[in-house]
Amino acid sequence: MDARDSMSNPAPILLSRRRLLAAGAVTLAGGTSAAQDAARELGPPRSPYGQRSPHETSARWFAPSPMPGSAASRTPLQDAVGIITPSALHFERHHAGVPALSPSTHELLVHGLVERPLVFTVADLRRMPSVSRIHFIECAGNSSREHEGRPAEDAQRSHGLLSCSEWTGVPLGALLREAGVRREAAWVVAEGADACRLARSLPIDKALDDVIVAYGQNGEALRPEQGYPLRLVVPGWEGNIHIKWLHRLQLSDQPAMSKDEAASYTDFMPDGRAQWFTFAMDVKSVITRPSGGQRLAATGFHEISGLAWSGRGRVTRVEVSADRGSTWQDATLSEPSLPKAFTRFTFPWAWSGRDTWLQSRASDDTGDRQPTREALVAVRGLLAGPDGFNHYNGIKAWRVRPDGTVSHV
Amino acid sequence: MDARDSMSNPAPILLSRRRLLAAGAVTLAGGTSAAQDAARELGPPRSPYGQRSPHETSARWFAPSPMPGSAASRTPLQDAVGIITPSALHFERHHAGVPALSPSTHELLVHGLVERPLVFTVADLRRMPSVSRIHFIECAGNSSREHEGRPAEDAQRSHGLLSCSEWTGVPLGALLREAGVRREAAWVVAEGADACRLARSLPIDKALDDVIVAYGQNGEALRPEQGYPLRLVVPGWEGNIHIKWLHRLQLSDQPAMSKDEAASYTDFMPDGRAQWFTFAMDVKSVITRPSGGQRLAATGFHEISGLAWSGRGRVTRVEVSADRGSTWQDATLSEPSLPKAFTRFTFPWAWSGRDTWLQSRASDDTGDRQPTREALVAVRGLLAGPDGFNHYNGIKAWRVRPDGTVSHV
Repeated sequence: MDARDSMSNPAPILLSRRRLLAAGAVTLAGGTSAAQDAARELGPPRSPYGQRSPHETSARWFAPSPMPGSAASRTPLQDAVGIITPSALHFERHHAGVPALSPSTHELLVHGLVERPLVFTVADLRRMPSVSRIHFIECAGNSSREHEGRPAEDAQRSHGLLSCSEWTGVPLGALLREAGVRREAAWVVAEGADACRLARSLPIDKALDDVIVAYGQNGEALRPEQGYPLRLVVPGWEGNIHIKWLHRLQLSDQPAMSKDEAASYTDFMPDGRAQWFTFAMDVKSVITRPSGGQRLAATGFHEISGLAWSGRGRVTRVEVSADRGSTWQDATLSEPSLPKAFTRFTFPWAWSGRDTWLQSRASDDTGDRQPTREALVAVRGLLAGPDGFNHYNGIKAWRVRPDGTVSHV
Repeated sequence: MDARDSMSNPAPILLSRRRLLAAGAVTLAGGTSAAQDAARELGPPRSPYGQRSPHETSARWFAPSPMPGSAASRTPLQDAVGIITPSALHFERHHAGVPALSPSTHELLVHGLVERPLVFTVADLRRMPSVSRIHFIECAGNSSREHEGRPAEDAQRSHGLLSCSEWTGVPLGALLREAGVRREAAWVVAEGADACRLARSLPIDKALDDVIVAYGQNGEALRPEQGYPLRLVVPGWEGNIHIKWLHRLQLSDQPAMSKDEAASYTDFMPDGRAQWFTFAMDVKSVITRPSGGQRLAATGFHEISGLAWSGRGRVTRVEVSADRGSTWQDATLSEPSLPKAFTRFTFPWAWSGRDTWLQSRASDDTGDRQPTREALVAVRGLLAGPDGFNHYNGIKAWRVRPDGTVSHV
């Protein structure tokens, strides 16, 4: 049966008779090939800050936006390799543009229910205790079209509000301890210096746990779209709360009930009511290769590769199915598998040339497993809020047609 | 005594009386500060492939080179955060320029002592089993001026032939098994498509162990200076053997004795003879902050941060001294500590304002510990080869003067 034998790892891996002959001819010709005689050029001039090859054109995709200053760009996950997203391709969502801030004048104010209200310059923060951790950030609304039953055509458009970087900065807890947290303080209201002064409220327990006031991303300064010179990194929680261009932290005994937590970024339920403060992103995965828009040039071996992540902990297992979900087999997980970070999974697959569905489902160390869309809709319903659905983590399927094209199901 | 109390972690961490008053005034003024009133601009236009802030100017430094096409650029380690080096700032060493190769025509030939000589296109390789791993690459000659007793003025010039990326590609062993390794094969000669066709020989055991034929770096395609579209990644071994622009792998019963393994990249000994094929880079560390060229703006808390690495395994311990090596205390190591990768270490330090030496020494899981320069010179001597010294891993010291300036010792 097609699905079953397609799941076994064949050998030799990808040699077609043609390439074997070609290679044979090559050696008969004396161990060289046309490509071996490539021009011996010295190439372009030196570059103090390097650029990618002009042959590489992978780019973020901006969904059309009716509002000036409001934009969302998606990471080209179909081109991604490994677990690090290049900073140049990290997704962004901004509601009032990308302010051009100067690190020499930008300041972070810590006030409210503290013993000592403080102002930190960026230089102050760089003297303080630092931590670097690899974490994903996912927009709460990522892949909401899957929830609606209108899947997008490729991994970038369906799941691209999602990226993973190494973040460096000061543990928020260390800053708050400097200011002295008063007993009544239950929330930390974080505000950005963007034009809309986007603000969100964090429970004090999370603020004192693993939150980072980040100035570094992937070994250099944050990129402007990521909040330069300072952003909040709130591991595992929805992207909107990772406040960018961070300039104010106010400790309070209650949440601010800001627009982005009282109206937007809430979860509508079937009874018409909305859940507030649903912060954590659930366990989820997506196959990035093969994925929508790609084309398999030939039958035979094709590695299945994808990304899995959980805002609640470590990814412990990813299963892959090539038979419409009848049978599932364990994929190999990249090492190390870090908490609240991408885990790359791979699975050896041989394509027979027949019409095939490829799906992945992830599990995390809390025991959660990625649900089917049907199971999720049964609980969450199909009544979307004004900003659409949030926190969708259903299983994603890609269809490989006999002509090798890959599309959504 | 200065050294001892300077090693204790004080609290509050960095508040000067001035900043505390300023902050107090701020709250009296109603919880805002001048910086809180930053302009509400929508900022620059959208960017499909993002750039860094114009305020960021960190750059690779090219040592003067008398030969056209021969260049070395160094990574600005003094600005580095975390363990990932941005691809744009990854060091490079090339002997015949940076060829502009096309991934659609580039091919990799595997021939010699194999059952089936093969030619792989880049598209072929992307279908094959893949692996992603974070590894450092260090030039064999990195920090050779320390060996000579002529230390450079900053971390970039002294230790900058060193970077760390997440590399993605096909395990070399999988490629060789496709071609079928003959029993007589003892070496793999790897050749690049640069103008000088730089070639190096790897023992077959290493080739079948952890070597990667890489097409990906930090989540996207390799950068041109890093061998686009294909390079060899030989974890833990000297940079020169990580053949860039890789286009040929020839299995042989003996090494090629190429120029870069028979003449260059050898280790001269006091008796005038040179050691051949000294591949692994030994355990080493360097403090990147504070480091040469930087200036401490005030006394009090300054986190000491640096990088440690070993080509033989995992970094298990980094010790820091602030009293000319009389006493050493354990630094905190970043998690996870990966084999043959950067490990970031941090240490809380309070500067009293006195003249101070800062040093670090790393140990790895083979039991090796970074030696003093004196101990290393006692064994290796001071007789350099035509290309200077290789494989220097002595302890590095930075001097903090009373005026806050930091320089080499």
